[in-house]
Amino acid sequence: MKIGYQGIEGAYSEIAVSNFTKNSDINSFESVGCPDFETIFKKVESGEFEFGLIAVENSLGGSIYQNFDLFKKYDLKVVGESYVHVNHQLLVLPGTKLDDVKEVYSHWQAIAQCKHNLKTFLPNAKAVEFFDTAGSAKYVKFQGDKSKASLASEKAGKIHGLKVLKKVFQDDKENYTRFLVVAKDYARFTNHKPKDFYKTSIIFAGGNETGFLFKALGCFSLRDINLSKIESRPVPKSPWKYYFYLDFNGKYDDEKVKNAINNLRELATEVKVLGSYKASKI
Amino acid sequence: MKIGYQGIEGAYSEIAVSNFTKNSDINSFESVGCPDFETIFKKVESGEFEFGLIAVENSLGGSIYQNFDLFKKYDLKVVGESYVHVNHQLLVLPGTKLDDVKEVYSHWQAIAQCKHNLKTFLPNAKAVEFFDTAGSAKYVKFQGDKSKASLASEKAGKIHGLKVLKKVFQDDKENYTRFLVVAKDYARFTNHKPKDFYKTSIIFAGGNETGFLFKALGCFSLRDINLSKIESRPVPKSPWKYYFYLDFNGKYDDEKVKNAINNLRELATEVKVLGSYKASKI
Repeated sequence: MKIGYQGIEGAYSEIAVSNFTKNSDINSFESVGCPDFETIFKKVESGEFEFGLIAVENSLGGSIYQNFDLFKKYDLKVVGESYVHVNHQLLVLPGTKLDDVKEVYSHWQAIAQCKHNLKTFLPNAKAVEFFDTAGSAKYVKFQGDKSKASLASEKAGKIHGLKVLKKVFQDDKENYTRFLVVAKDYARFTNHKPKDFYKTSIIFAGGNETGFLFKALGCFSLRDINLSKIESRPVPKSPWKYYFYLDFNGKYDDEKVKNAINNLRELATEVKVLGSYKASKI
Repeated sequence: MKIGYQGIEGAYSEIAVSNFTKNSDINSFESVGCPDFETIFKKVESGEFEFGLIAVENSLGGSIYQNFDLFKKYDLKVVGESYVHVNHQLLVLPGTKLDDVKEVYSHWQAIAQCKHNLKTFLPNAKAVEFFDTAGSAKYVKFQGDKSKASLASEKAGKIHGLKVLKKVFQDDKENYTRFLVVAKDYARFTNHKPKDFYKTSIIFAGGNETGFLFKALGCFSLRDINLSKIESRPVPKSPWKYYFYLDFNGKYDDEKVKNAINNLRELATEVKVLGSYKASKI
């Protein structure tokens, strides 16, 4: 069984795969790194991957907006959720001291998340943007140059043979990324226990009438269904119209969830249920 | 009077300045290009600029999310709105033919918006990402090399001395960017006529209770106030809590808008009125 993630070994997305499988009945699998998220959608659709992990939101940076458009474009089911605690370490070649470091490589978002510590501990080092956190660790190892450091996960440091100079280097420790797990269908996950806590993700669009969104949310709120996330994205070729992405508590075959979705179908021009899945813990 | 915009001469943001001033009583002003949007906020706050134009949304690409965070960070008023019809032209050095073009420079989003036409008309040319559309026009002129072309506005072509090879080169003609105009206070805009059509922008945050967003939108919908835009951004240091950005029809001193905002203050932990402004037409 193959599970796709974005990036290379040691990427936070690969850690999301581990966290997902640990909380499932999957015992044996192979994680396969992909250059971008759309490749994952394509390979799950074609059957090459059984599952794919898609980053949807970081607690500091916000939604990963392009990926919401991919949920609309491809017809896959959301069958799981996985959280990763993002913890950037300052990684160097063995024997390197803080004073040796002149350049720090990482993804621009990781650099932004370590801004304060970079100023404090490495005031004279230059931050260099790289396409990927784990990729920057591999690059520093490959270069073999003690003036270069990487900001990446503990796992990336271990895999790519770097030493930890600072164990926690991000400014804000509360840094989580939420992933959704996509599959071609639900077949894999019929063994959930009834007492499991579920979430459901849907996409919907409506007209321009006054109060549409209020009425749409009412379908859920009036049934005491708690919303955990709302996001909007533009409808192509229809300026200032939006698709709404909604996550709420409950499972698609719960009586009140069924009623809420039927109610929404009365109001909306389009409703797509992405899937229901066991909620994961941070 | 100085008005700040992001980019260099010929940028779509500079066109937003013209569109804004044309629909106001401002006769004489100087547009000043800035390297990024935060610089505009800073210079309006310090009094160096009277106004600043902030891109908030593109009808194809969606919200410009980082700028929403800046409205929260700085304490400026929104006093106007401006739309720009984004139209990318294929710009070249005088005498260049389609067959001569081997490289096309532009901002990544402009390249993405011309993807289909690039394939059709320039199947062998390489697209090269540049920091800015107008900047790519300036660069092509500076290089003086007929194998290089730029995707930028008509104005950028004229200012930077390039010739138009294709007048409309984007795949989707319906391509608009919405800008908000920021100022230190409302003083400049007390001469609006009562019959003008107004919009108001606010930011609010609430607790985690079930139905908070539904209730918050209800403050407006139950008073027949039409919402035109909603956006959410993460609250720093509070994973999975959000600030909501709301645009709705009406002016802050309309009786029903005042009541709606007071009603929202009963529910929300934080409400910030960014401002009311004359709605602009596309």
